[in-house]
Amino acid sequence: MQLSDKGAVIIDLKFERRDVDQALAGSLAGRQVLHASDKSTDLSSASYAFLWKPDPDLFQRAPNLKILFSGGAGVDSILATPGLPDIPIVRFVDQSLTTRMSEWVVLQCLSHLRQVPAYLVQQRSRTWREISQPEARELTVGVMGLGVLGQDSARKLKIMGFNVIGWSRTAKTVESIETYDATELDAFLARTDILVGLLPLTDETRGIFNASLFSKLRQGGALGTPVFINAGRGGSQVEKDLISALESGTLGGASLDVFEREPLSSDSPFWSMDNVIVTPHAASASDVRALLRNAEVQMERFEKGEPLQHVVDRATGY
Amino acid sequence: MQLSDKGAVIIDLKFERRDVDQALAGSLAGRQVLHASDKSTDLSSASYAFLWKPDPDLFQRAPNLKILFSGGAGVDSILATPGLPDIPIVRFVDQSLTTRMSEWVVLQCLSHLRQVPAYLVQQRSRTWREISQPEARELTVGVMGLGVLGQDSARKLKIMGFNVIGWSRTAKTVESIETYDATELDAFLARTDILVGLLPLTDETRGIFNASLFSKLRQGGALGTPVFINAGRGGSQVEKDLISALESGTLGGASLDVFEREPLSSDSPFWSMDNVIVTPHAASASDVRALLRNAEVQMERFEKGEPLQHVVDRATGY
Ligand SMILES: NC(=O)c1ccc[n+]([C@@H]2O[C@H](COP(=O)([O-])OP(=O)(O)OC[C@H]3O[C@@H](n4cnc5c(N)ncnc54)[C@H](OP(=O)(O)O)[C@@H]3O)[C@@H](O)[C@H]2O)c1
Ligand SMILES: NC(=O)c1ccc[n+]([C@@H]2O[C@H](COP(=O)([O-])OP(=O)(O)OC[C@H]3O[C@@H](n4cnc5c(N)ncnc54)[C@H](OP(=O)(O)O)[C@@H]3O)[C@@H](O)[C@H]2O)c1
Repeated sequence: MQLSDKGAVIIDLKFERRDVDQALAGSLAGRQVLHASDKSTDLSSASYAFLWKPDPDLFQRAPNLKILFSGGAGVDSILATPGLPDIPIVRFVDQSLTTRMSEWVVLQCLSHLRQVPAYLVQQRSRTWREISQPEARELTVGVMGLGVLGQDSARKLKIMGFNVIGWSRTAKTVESIETYDATELDAFLARTDILVGLLPLTDETRGIFNASLFSKLRQGGALGTPVFINAGRGGSQVEKDLISALESGTLGGASLDVFEREPLSSDSPFWSMDNVIVTPHAASASDVRALLRNAEVQMERFEKGEPLQHVVDRATGY
Repeated sequence: MQLSDKGAVIIDLKFERRDVDQALAGSLAGRQVLHASDKSTDLSSASYAFLWKPDPDLFQRAPNLKILFSGGAGVDSILATPGLPDIPIVRFVDQSLTTRMSEWVVLQCLSHLRQVPAYLVQQRSRTWREISQPEARELTVGVMGLGVLGQDSARKLKIMGFNVIGWSRTAKTVESIETYDATELDAFLARTDILVGLLPLTDETRGIFNASLFSKLRQGGALGTPVFINAGRGGSQVEKDLISALESGTLGGASLDVFEREPLSSDSPFWSMDNVIVTPHAASASDVRALLRNAEVQMERFEKGEPLQHVVDRATGY
């Protein structure tokens, strides 16, 4: 097959150029690769584009695109791009992305179960004292969002011993986990000791983690007060409500990887709260090589006339 | 069955008396319970004793014992008791004890994988910066001790994505985990990025975690330098060697639940090392109710003439 037989690909990724070049070295064989950042490059022949927060002129420069590939996990920022053409957007689904997210989620749930924030305070004051730390099965972790990530996290939390329940827009069946659909949110929250947010950011999920929701979580469970963990998107959390809930004791702790505004401002109270664990949107990083590899599979399906996988639904926004 | 038909039980546990009384309320039905701490109590009729660091006169006061039950996990302190009669010692094996230990082990391995100590330093200085954090499968966790605890931890570490290998005195077969026996220690260490100690304290394991052993761990793995995690017994670790290895960079971090002397002295350097996580011998607490429940099963087996389970081997010391 000649170079010209395979559709050309625009790269408009927001990674270090060096990482992109390294990943490209072994990927997209036989395809012309065009860098959107080189403003003089003619993009008109391109069929595919990898995007992450593109410049507004991209779609004028590339009027013949057939498929867009999300250049990271989550498509909220792509859907917000002005002038987005009405062609399929394929999201990034990858075993490594999923595994890494579950590492982070299990780490955070175990950290709160085993009183890591309190033990760290004790370590700093050289205090040897056992703190009451319930067993995983005494706690119910409620996972909001049972997609690719939520289901894997739920399964692994269950293996670690937690009681696990899940919530999603449409009803899901996940082995040995009780699930709730969108209409059953209050019943789900009333059972939840540790809330894990793995939702995409959409019109419906924006601001969903607010004072009202926090007040519906189970109080008086084995940890005393509920814990909030979020690795979906910061736009889903109302940070002033979250800070109040942590200060008033409605919430006993939190682990946050995502924030309303990133990077998190250095004057945010989250940094210095003993019961809050902050990570810099690093729960699960998208690997450039994996991004390219995943998209290549879809380009080949498309060129063989097979249906695409992981296409974003513009009606629901994810 | 009358009270006198079932053997009387001595309680010599080092828990809060209130916790013991609560647990006794629903346990050992039909048996006479004698508290060793009441020095005027006649213990001569007792067949069974729960022990944890007993007073030296116990065995003179109770010359008719048939079985000793370990009043906690690990039998090193019981075996060191002066005047120990030559009768079976049954150790404490319990699902909850095992599950809790695996919570702690998985928590510590994920903490080092995901650079928790370094992120905590950044959080304190309000720094938003992603740190290189390899994926679980890029690291090999080597579990030393493949007993009840080591096997459960190994299985769960594997599910979390780690590459897992194990070492024990006699060769073991554990699904999807490569195992090494006592003669193959160096080969095992050469592959290990995160070492997890779950060994009993015996003549052979005393001081086993020393400078020589640390120097044989894999250098230059995905974390750069190896990590040491110990929840077995503090007597197995040589703390001056451990401190040197952490200071020189032979080791990149540690999680320690057990120490040469407990409680850990407030002037120990471990408390203030950024890459060391200290917990106060709380990886897996023995629950009094579970202790009594487990022993009851063995008393009944004994009284029916069935063989006892989990009997300590005095030759190997565990
Ligand atoms: N922090 C990080 O490093 C990081 C890394 C990767 C991803 N993420 C975030 O994680 C999100 C989830 O990823 P994923 O791959 O699991 O997504 P996914 O497979 O699309 O799953 C999304 C889940 O959320 C549910 N959901 C969506 N809108 C909802 C609503 N209004 N009410 C109730 N449930 C709703 C969906 O319900 P249905 O099952 O009914 O469709 C589905 O279960 C991504 O969108 C991204 O923002 C963050
Ligand atoms: N920190 C805590 O909170 C806590 C809680 C509970 C227990 N512990 C400690 O954890 C220890 C392990 O518990 P467990 O129930 O898993 O014990 P176990 O079932 O008796 O297993 C002990 C394991 O260590 C191996 N081993 C013993 N001596 C060895 C030697 N010289 N060389 C190589 N391997 C050796 C055994 O090998 P074989 O398989 O060949 O016999 C076995 O695999 C306990 O003894 C206790 O000290 C600590």
